[in-house]
Amino acid sequence: MEKKIQTAVAGATGYAGFELARLLLKHGRLAPPVLFTREDAEKAEPLDSVYPHIAGNGGHPLVPFSWDIVAEKKIDVLFLATPHEKSFELVPEAAKRRLKVIDLSGAWRLQDDANRAVYKLPNLNGSAGLLKQSVYGLPELHKEDVAKAQIVANPGCYATSVILGLAPLAKANVLDASAGVVCDCKSGVSGAGKEPTKKTHFVEVADNLSAYSVFGHRHTGEILEQLGLKAGDVVFTTHLLPIPRGILSTMYVKLKNESDAASVEKLYRDFYKGSHFVRVFAAGELPQIQYSVRTNYCDIGFALAPDKKRLIVVSCLDNLMKGAAGQAVQNMNVMLGFPEWEGLN
Amino acid sequence: MEKKIQTAVAGATGYAGFELARLLLKHGRLAPPVLFTREDAEKAEPLDSVYPHIAGNGGHPLVPFSWDIVAEKKIDVLFLATPHEKSFELVPEAAKRRLKVIDLSGAWRLQDDANRAVYKLPNLNGSAGLLKQSVYGLPELHKEDVAKAQIVANPGCYATSVILGLAPLAKANVLDASAGVVCDCKSGVSGAGKEPTKKTHFVEVADNLSAYSVFGHRHTGEILEQLGLKAGDVVFTTHLLPIPRGILSTMYVKLKNESDAASVEKLYRDFYKGSHFVRVFAAGELPQIQYSVRTNYCDIGFALAPDKKRLIVVSCLDNLMKGAAGQAVQNMNVMLGFPEWEGLN
Amino acid sequence: MEKKIQTAVAGATGYAGFELARLLLKHGRLAPPVLFTREDAEKAEPLDSVYPHIAGNGGHPLVPFSWDIVAEKKIDVLFLATPHEKSFELVPEAAKRRLKVIDLSGAWRLQDDANRAVYKLPNLNGSAGLLKQSVYGLPELHKEDVAKAQIVANPGCYATSVILGLAPLAKANVLDASAGVVCDCKSGVSGAGKEPTKKTHFVEVADNLSAYSVFGHRHTGEILEQLGLKAGDVVFTTHLLPIPRGILSTMYVKLKNESDAASVEKLYRDFYKGSHFVRVFAAGELPQIQYSVRTNYCDIGFALAPDKKRLIVVSCLDNLMKGAAGQAVQNMNVMLGFPEWEGLN
Amino acid sequence: MEKKIQTAVAGATGYAGFELARLLLKHGRLAPPVLFTREDAEKAEPLDSVYPHIAGNGGHPLVPFSWDIVAEKKIDVLFLATPHEKSFELVPEAAKRRLKVIDLSGAWRLQDDANRAVYKLPNLNGSAGLLKQSVYGLPELHKEDVAKAQIVANPGCYATSVILGLAPLAKANVLDASAGVVCDCKSGVSGAGKEPTKKTHFVEVADNLSAYSVFGHRHTGEILEQLGLKAGDVVFTTHLLPIPRGILSTMYVKLKNESDAASVEKLYRDFYKGSHFVRVFAAGELPQIQYSVRTNYCDIGFALAPDKKRLIVVSCLDNLMKGAAGQAVQNMNVMLGFPEWEGLN
Repeated sequence: MEKKIQTAVAGATGYAGFELARLLLKHGRLAPPVLFTREDAEKAEPLDSVYPHIAGNGGHPLVPFSWDIVAEKKIDVLFLATPHEKSFELVPEAAKRRLKVIDLSGAWRLQDDANRAVYKLPNLNGSAGLLKQSVYGLPELHKEDVAKAQIVANPGCYATSVILGLAPLAKANVLDASAGVVCDCKSGVSGAGKEPTKKTHFVEVADNLSAYSVFGHRHTGEILEQLGLKAGDVVFTTHLLPIPRGILSTMYVKLKNESDAASVEKLYRDFYKGSHFVRVFAAGELPQIQYSVRTNYCDIGFALAPDKKRLIVVSCLDNLMKGAAGQAVQNMNVMLGFPEWEGLN
Repeated sequence: MEKKIQTAVAGATGYAGFELARLLLKHGRLAPPVLFTREDAEKAEPLDSVYPHIAGNGGHPLVPFSWDIVAEKKIDVLFLATPHEKSFELVPEAAKRRLKVIDLSGAWRLQDDANRAVYKLPNLNGSAGLLKQSVYGLPELHKEDVAKAQIVANPGCYATSVILGLAPLAKANVLDASAGVVCDCKSGVSGAGKEPTKKTHFVEVADNLSAYSVFGHRHTGEILEQLGLKAGDVVFTTHLLPIPRGILSTMYVKLKNESDAASVEKLYRDFYKGSHFVRVFAAGELPQIQYSVRTNYCDIGFALAPDKKRLIVVSCLDNLMKGAAGQAVQNMNVMLGFPEWEGLN
Repeated sequence: MEKKIQTAVAGATGYAGFELARLLLKHGRLAPPVLFTREDAEKAEPLDSVYPHIAGNGGHPLVPFSWDIVAEKKIDVLFLATPHEKSFELVPEAAKRRLKVIDLSGAWRLQDDANRAVYKLPNLNGSAGLLKQSVYGLPELHKEDVAKAQIVANPGCYATSVILGLAPLAKANVLDASAGVVCDCKSGVSGAGKEPTKKTHFVEVADNLSAYSVFGHRHTGEILEQLGLKAGDVVFTTHLLPIPRGILSTMYVKLKNESDAASVEKLYRDFYKGSHFVRVFAAGELPQIQYSVRTNYCDIGFALAPDKKRLIVVSCLDNLMKGAAGQAVQNMNVMLGFPEWEGLN
Repeated sequence: MEKKIQTAVAGATGYAGFELARLLLKHGRLAPPVLFTREDAEKAEPLDSVYPHIAGNGGHPLVPFSWDIVAEKKIDVLFLATPHEKSFELVPEAAKRRLKVIDLSGAWRLQDDANRAVYKLPNLNGSAGLLKQSVYGLPELHKEDVAKAQIVANPGCYATSVILGLAPLAKANVLDASAGVVCDCKSGVSGAGKEPTKKTHFVEVADNLSAYSVFGHRHTGEILEQLGLKAGDVVFTTHLLPIPRGILSTMYVKLKNESDAASVEKLYRDFYKGSHFVRVFAAGELPQIQYSVRTNYCDIGFALAPDKKRLIVVSCLDNLMKGAAGQAVQNMNVMLGFPEWEGLN
């Protein structure tokens, strides 16, 4: 009998951590995951007390994080759904212990110092080497590197939607970046985390829409690094939607040369051939948040202007799935040599 | 020229306090109200910084509460949109100073000790006399007392909807209370206050419905005292709706004797003749939350069972208007001899 | 190799029909289902054109209903997600052809003529015998009959939530029905169907709550027949919630004799021992819609009044899952001897 | 005593028409408006049967449109909240009768044939002269012309938000239009009208966001004509928000020369000095939909990029108020010499 892989989740009670726990609990190739609380709780309580949604098939104990448990349980893969400060602290030790790590925070996503500064990441101290080794966990772009990685930096939710939306153009070098790349993105509230704040109060969000982090959103660096764009060329704006989950990004770009809808569609289809979790829509048909919510798909559609150069690309995904936990499982599948979609359909 | 009445609001930044400030600012017979913050803020900032909704017609400074300002500004009417602990502290002093007080908290609503205990109100200490004098500010039932009152206890939002829904039956003594009075009530989230909590987090409320405070909601006492019912006869249950504001109460009662729809409708219409803010619906037509939201109306409809005895009464109101700030202004109008609807249409 | 069961869905484009198609497509023991459109469409288009949500794993053609296809494809189980008029027309022929039928309409749910009249069901004509044979498909109550049935009448969504909520009391004969049984139920909008109407218009539903079908909802008969109650004892009221899916029913009943929370909890736990899809909550803890939405669970909680007799029972389920498509698959599993939860977790 | 102005509304039962009726009923200088139904109803029913929201101060009869009633009632101002086909039919006759007309449809907004074609407006036939005379009713830009106009074309809701957001830049000639003008706009569902359609079904809209009318929205022409821009320079995209009302437009532009936040803010403040219904936010502060919903304000904020050239402008308004009915009343006030805000605060 195949030995089941042992995983653990640090931060299993946040929205992304819980989504991840849920996926790992149902994944056929895994032993039940070890679930660490975000808080340094003194006593263990089961995850289904925090989330009665999953009650009914046995309690899932939550325990405070401890390296002893990591060792004792022989953890193969450690997922971190923790703030980036915590990830900075845990990853070097995990690396020393030869664990595979998939970190959902922003700690290891950015190679460029300027971008790390925008994200307000702390100094690397002795971890510059680890950063170099870490792989940006977007399997559609870096599948081979992910497969070999020890540390995978799971991408940001907004960043995933923008990068997947524009990568076929950027990589084919048909994008006229100097004409400006406008990314107008909208996200559901779970992206803002589980902490109750004025910003997440129902009365402040319902019947509302607001833009935030204008000219300074910390996901910008991921977009620049992954697409090879300059800071001055990209405007990336985010809005808070009155829905629990889902992201829709509307991207406005210009092609270097005139094209036609069929060619653009072909470019996208070719680029994502073999990418199970990207659904390219027919030219002129656009995805909606509802289509991909609660799935690991990133849906991409586009429309070409009559001038044959200006292009609107719309991409949608679920911020907790392809934007966080689903992508983390996808990365794990790649790292372990499982089919990419195992446990994700 | 008529001297304008000077009002003040303590707690003007909460949802009910802000709604009240808004109403008072537009009320034609009043000088601009003095607005006290809920916090002991060190520096004054204008209300329209907290609520940009009302920007555009001059800043409205917020200041920390102070009896000196009350004296200096010659406040005629003091509104308290403060927690009941604070109201307990402020009302005796306000009474000493001969202010008219309209208190939106539960501090002075309940005469019965058992009900006060359910509400977890502190001991009265020396204030038993004040409590006796205070009037339950539901003008549809106590208009004359309100007109003469110095201290008005503004009713709870749920309590208002239930009491107005059942008063015509209870007062006409046609209600068979021994057969049970079931009040199944649903409220929007602003009723839970402005404080961000797990309960008010958008992701926890949206796409959801939950019952709470079952067999123990602190508004129960108001319903019992105002309708003359026994605790054992009434079941009052509340639910949190995924909407910002509005209450719908569905009440299930039995009549002592068989009746018919026309008679029931006449009973309601007669009872509320002269009550500007109650709209009685034709038999069999039921109000919806949308109809009365952002108004000071309480809408009431009913349906009679084929057995001619069981009755469903539905009442709707806006928890921040007729359930709080609007009713407070209505009470003020009655206390000052203004038409009841002044500043409320 | 095990021969895969062949299913078909008539009415696969409605909300319940689509949910059913989705479940059947993922069910491990079934061949891909034949999907009949609701409309007599002339040309076939794939289901993922109507619902791009499921795009990505091959088109699923929709075809107009035809007995020839039923024969040719050797359909074993026919699901009807059609209006009850259509079910009346199709079931006798399906019975003649020895198909197993699971009908999601109300056509075959009610044995009592009075209840059938309230539902406005047409005359049975020659089908009285078929009605007698049909089994009310609530496996928690009728598992053995379902296992042997040819025609299963899949219960109504509201009815499921009420019947499961009260069955342990009714069957144990501890319910004082003469004291009245009040069922105050609230449902999301998908329960009202896919047809655009004034009632389902976003602007009419959002920020709103409304009661409807007071003293006359057509699910009442199911509740009466299944719980053995008299029409005069039950009040069943429904409300339209501003959410896409989910039902919460708040039920107010009286016990014949005093009890205590532990005994009531035990009664429920014993009754539902072995019922995979009912989750009984600890005494005093109540389910919320979020917990069971998008699952096949019916969650049940309760609170006992200080008088030890009055009881509030809250039950929640997803109207499209346990209230329709999920329950239909559960019934199919029982009919075919599969584990009840196959394809439902 | 001042003779009260007599108004009439054709199409008083649509969302904009109802909002308009509501405003006119409360406007102090007007006689109660004559309310024409959208349908050629045979019998009159009161507006508060259609909208119980306004019940309580007398019924407001709805009657089918008739020129006889127009003549008999001596209508001074006729509002058309009708489809543009109907407006085409009614305006010439109204002009002949010397009525002042405020048309909320798109029929008379566009002077340019190419833009009229995009809007799919019918041929003018003999009405080219009338079109020339008609004034685009955006008082912030054309107050003097509106004051003298007989026919006012009330602007589109999206168009109002974009034009007001960009006019200060365009009129000061500081906008580098050749660098592209991206308008990413989001609207609540009431903008899609009262007709129940798949697009407005609650289940299709809730928890969702979708882009529509990409590269072809009919409001584009208004933006081009009013801002003096070329079709090729503007991309205008619209999205359907899961909220009942409100528009937020995020606009991405480039300045011809470097500037700073203070100068941009001053430009906006100067431009809108004297414009009661535009609220300019301090540099870096952005409006949200909640702030202006249910008011006639258009809120405008902006943020300047570090490169001092790229600018994001955010404008918000209520699509039924400043985007339709409120603006219509504002236009009427200007036409009649009343203060602009009469009946709108």
